[in-house]
Amino acid sequence: MAEASAAWDDEARPDEKTQQVLRDMANRLRIHSIRDVYAAGAGHPSSCYSAAEIMSVLFFHTMRYKQLDPENPNNDRFILSKRLSFVDVPTGSLGQELGIACGMAYAGRYFDKASYRVFCLMGDGETSEGSIWEALAFASHYSLDNLVAIFDVNCWGKSSPTPPKFCPDVCQKRCEAFGWNTFVVDGHDVEALCRVFWQAAQVKNKPTAIVAKTFKGRGIPNVEDTENWHRKPMLKERADAIIKLIESQIQTNEELTPKPPIEDSPDISIANIEMTSRTTYKIGDKVSTRKAYGVALAKLGHVNERVIVLDSDTKNSTFSELFKKEHPERFIECFMAEQNMVSVALGLVTHGRAIAFVSSFAAFLTRAFDQIRMGATSQANVTLIGSHCGVSVGEDGPSQMALEDLAMFRTIPNCTIFYPSDAVSTEHAVYLAANTKGMCYIRTSRPETPVIYTQYECFEIGQAKVVRHSVNDKVTVIGAGVTLHEALAAADDLAKQDISVRVIDLFTIKPLDTATIISNAKATGGRLLTVEDHYQEGGIGEAVCAAVSMEPEIVVQQLVVSGVPQSGKTSELLDVFGINARHIAAAVKCLLMDDTCQFL
Amino acid sequence: MAEASAAWDDEARPDEKTQQVLRDMANRLRIHSIRDVYAAGAGHPSSCYSAAEIMSVLFFHTMRYKQLDPENPNNDRFILSKRLSFVDVPTGSLGQELGIACGMAYAGRYFDKASYRVFCLMGDGETSEGSIWEALAFASHYSLDNLVAIFDVNCWGKSSPTPPKFCPDVCQKRCEAFGWNTFVVDGHDVEALCRVFWQAAQVKNKPTAIVAKTFKGRGIPNVEDTENWHRKPMLKERADAIIKLIESQIQTNEELTPKPPIEDSPDISIANIEMTSRTTYKIGDKVSTRKAYGVALAKLGHVNERVIVLDSDTKNSTFSELFKKEHPERFIECFMAEQNMVSVALGLVTHGRAIAFVSSFAAFLTRAFDQIRMGATSQANVTLIGSHCGVSVGEDGPSQMALEDLAMFRTIPNCTIFYPSDAVSTEHAVYLAANTKGMCYIRTSRPETPVIYTQYECFEIGQAKVVRHSVNDKVTVIGAGVTLHEALAAADDLAKQDISVRVIDLFTIKPLDTATIISNAKATGGRLLTVEDHYQEGGIGEAVCAAVSMEPEIVVQQLVVSGVPQSGKTSELLDVFGINARHIAAAVKCLLMDDTCQFL
Repeated sequence: MAEASAAWDDEARPDEKTQQVLRDMANRLRIHSIRDVYAAGAGHPSSCYSAAEIMSVLFFHTMRYKQLDPENPNNDRFILSKRLSFVDVPTGSLGQELGIACGMAYAGRYFDKASYRVFCLMGDGETSEGSIWEALAFASHYSLDNLVAIFDVNCWGKSSPTPPKFCPDVCQKRCEAFGWNTFVVDGHDVEALCRVFWQAAQVKNKPTAIVAKTFKGRGIPNVEDTENWHRKPMLKERADAIIKLIESQIQTNEELTPKPPIEDSPDISIANIEMTSRTTYKIGDKVSTRKAYGVALAKLGHVNERVIVLDSDTKNSTFSELFKKEHPERFIECFMAEQNMVSVALGLVTHGRAIAFVSSFAAFLTRAFDQIRMGATSQANVTLIGSHCGVSVGEDGPSQMALEDLAMFRTIPNCTIFYPSDAVSTEHAVYLAANTKGMCYIRTSRPETPVIYTQYECFEIGQAKVVRHSVNDKVTVIGAGVTLHEALAAADDLAKQDISVRVIDLFTIKPLDTATIISNAKATGGRLLTVEDHYQEGGIGEAVCAAVSMEPEIVVQQLVVSGVPQSGKTSELLDVFGINARHIAAAVKCLLMDDTCQFL
Repeated sequence: MAEASAAWDDEARPDEKTQQVLRDMANRLRIHSIRDVYAAGAGHPSSCYSAAEIMSVLFFHTMRYKQLDPENPNNDRFILSKRLSFVDVPTGSLGQELGIACGMAYAGRYFDKASYRVFCLMGDGETSEGSIWEALAFASHYSLDNLVAIFDVNCWGKSSPTPPKFCPDVCQKRCEAFGWNTFVVDGHDVEALCRVFWQAAQVKNKPTAIVAKTFKGRGIPNVEDTENWHRKPMLKERADAIIKLIESQIQTNEELTPKPPIEDSPDISIANIEMTSRTTYKIGDKVSTRKAYGVALAKLGHVNERVIVLDSDTKNSTFSELFKKEHPERFIECFMAEQNMVSVALGLVTHGRAIAFVSSFAAFLTRAFDQIRMGATSQANVTLIGSHCGVSVGEDGPSQMALEDLAMFRTIPNCTIFYPSDAVSTEHAVYLAANTKGMCYIRTSRPETPVIYTQYECFEIGQAKVVRHSVNDKVTVIGAGVTLHEALAAADDLAKQDISVRVIDLFTIKPLDTATIISNAKATGGRLLTVEDHYQEGGIGEAVCAAVSMEPEIVVQQLVVSGVPQSGKTSELLDVFGINARHIAAAVKCLLMDDTCQFL
């Protein structure tokens, strides 16, 4: 380290004057934030205060970027969990930022192979969130030495001191145990901050954590380090007095210009990803949609080199391993850490650097609901794939049966939800998702089901398929996934009894093809029957009911899974939970006998 | 430690024969699990194998319990993340068990003040889940020395080796950094296991982690420690051969009887919690439902000493701090770790030892969706409270506005969902929830709204209130929370224009009062209008549409929040997102003009 120290003294250390300008800029940030918060009537002035020197050093000494071109792919990245300006990803729900930063750093090290660094500033309160520790484990596992995490340890949470035992030393010890290179530093000492950021850049194959000891209301009389000031606005007179006090400490009038970035990020494109060959499935082939997903993904990987696949230790079940076999360098094993996996994906795709496919059991994606919710606000090109949906999972057991995933993803604004029913439509779903801005979700199933579409069939988002149709149809049955095949079987049975029904494959659950649903309902006496391998709440049936709710002539009967599921054979469970061909046929007959049939 | 070692040698160490019996019982467990898995056609035989000696020592040497009385409150507790027999809480989704164990240990140390100990056995793969680290931090913060966590480190996850850097030493270092007393031990050495479990009992004020080095397929030729055997069944011949091999290692034919528990858990009751006094609110008082929740909770705390409140560093916003002020010893600060908070609550209430109220911002409860989902299967007496729902939150910003919480909780089987609209009904919701088996959710709001019910009003689960009613009503408007007040304001406005509307307060969203909805809809020309501070998907409107979907004469118009919300004043946001009195009045007129009015 002697040599490094010499290099620091000779080249990197800021001179006295620069240090003073950095201190002055920190104080200007303080004044800025007190004015902002005063004007908005709400916000977190005290936590902005504690990080003022950290921000000043990062933005005007350490980081390399073009101030006028924040989208430049060569810029150093900065992620903040407290809301200030110059943030790459909108955040606000705590403990998600480090995972996003991991994704950016992973892209920098392994895909862009570029010089940019990633800085993530966090409060100490949010270190209680498990997602932070998932991210810490990920970063050290993948040797992300271009990543610097700064913990602003001011020892106050929102409503009370953070766990008292969480002093800077504990934070350091924990980060070290998670495999990080770690420094403890006075978070208000600009020279010390410059030095640790420089040292972090010298460390190879390890991410660096900087534990910065700070005071929450630093520089504000009677506020520094007292409880319950978080989020409280202040009186105008008091604000003016404090601003005056801070202004009196400012000694220079200069501004510093950040260093320009090193321009070594490759030019890439993630647009217009065409299917280069037709599917090779033949009608009647038995293929599970989860497997068709893996096959399509592996194919997609050849079309664009920025297609990245993430999985959480389920690759042999989700079939993302088919992608890994052909593109091992673009497969990221995230282990059992679904929250972090989603955050890493969001980080990977920022600045349009990648198209991410995130695979897991659909049930386990519930772990990442908050990350998905926040990620949707950023129009990120991330597709989540949930396999093993519904009771059709069979023997694997109830904890792994997703019966609430459609409800969850339907609440995500602008999320496109695909629920393909055969291998051909699954392949189309993968390609459509790759070309769709914003979050997508693909629901795949475990059982093998026959291919029903030819290789020439075209699919579009928001366009349902009428897969069985005659002029005499009396009821329209809406299915998706396994229940579409049950609906077709029921239609066959009913045909033998001279009852003709129409069958619709929704293909996308969101957006829903309301026009097709309504026109077919009207053509079949206003009778709709929905069948789904999902709970009623927030599922397909409710979506359809809402879509036709202004149509007085349409009635909707719903077949859904209810109660806590159990383990068993797929065919048995579909029968026990009332969503197989037998129940569909009975429901159709019942609808025809009496429009208010309730005994199903 | 010399003295302790002497005590071990003299009193606690099992003799040679006992050790052999423990080894034999471990091998019998192995045979048992191979037969079970073979019979079921699916399961995890190899991971059961690695833990056989741990199970044998725990169940037949260390743990004190009555074999014939598994519900006895004095028994030591055992929690397992792999599915075997004798599990207190149904699990299966990984990484949730340690938090549940923390709840049991917290109850034992602080409420029961009893001798029972809590043992939690985990795999190493699930240590990737952040929830584990939330629980580790919680247990050391609260000095849970009655808690022992056993990490079965066999170094294989589901689809691949766990992170290679996660060797036993790393696991030990991380647990130590999280404040635990830690041992590394050979997980197949019964004497060593007996010793560390005994040592753990000698340690005061610190939980103990035992890092057990094991081999996944221990004892099975060609399987021990190889990839991809997880979850794979085997051929009958092979199974028989392995069973024969294991049988040949069994030397004794004896069984051991567990030691009886120390009977020092107090008798308690959590049944029949009556409201001891009427509410003191007067009609027109302006009180937020979040505050009324805090007031009711503090009151409830005086009625039953087993009412426990948990919060995740939001107590000054959720108003759970009102409970803390009066009952500090029964308030558990869980810091920002929502997943662990829910798991701790589930642990606290097992064996009917407590009634838990879990408070947070409704938006942040999305973090715990998987824990909530799994917890609902156990009929646990846990009520979750989500404050700051909807855009009516106002200035605090979009990340904190819950617009998907109803969709989430509606998917939970048997979950009772309260959405009170004033202080009186909030108080009733709290009492009803305390008396309801199974999970409950109470949605509270930030704005102050007038009290509309007298102190004599009675409330029941599944019973809506018709709060405005005349024979001339033309439309039924359904609201809840802030939108009920907007509906009442709209009704006032419309009355001036001689348009009479009926207004319904749902009170509980699940179960939904379908009979009241349908009868009132029919009485008002089949016209329903729902208004909610929630997204359409999975919300009140969809629930109502589904409830009336078999009624051809009823149409439902929905006013909902759509898109990503923004920050602003409550009244402005209610207007921007189209759910205030003005929009309600316009929608009513539109419904009256044309039943297919679409331009809203």
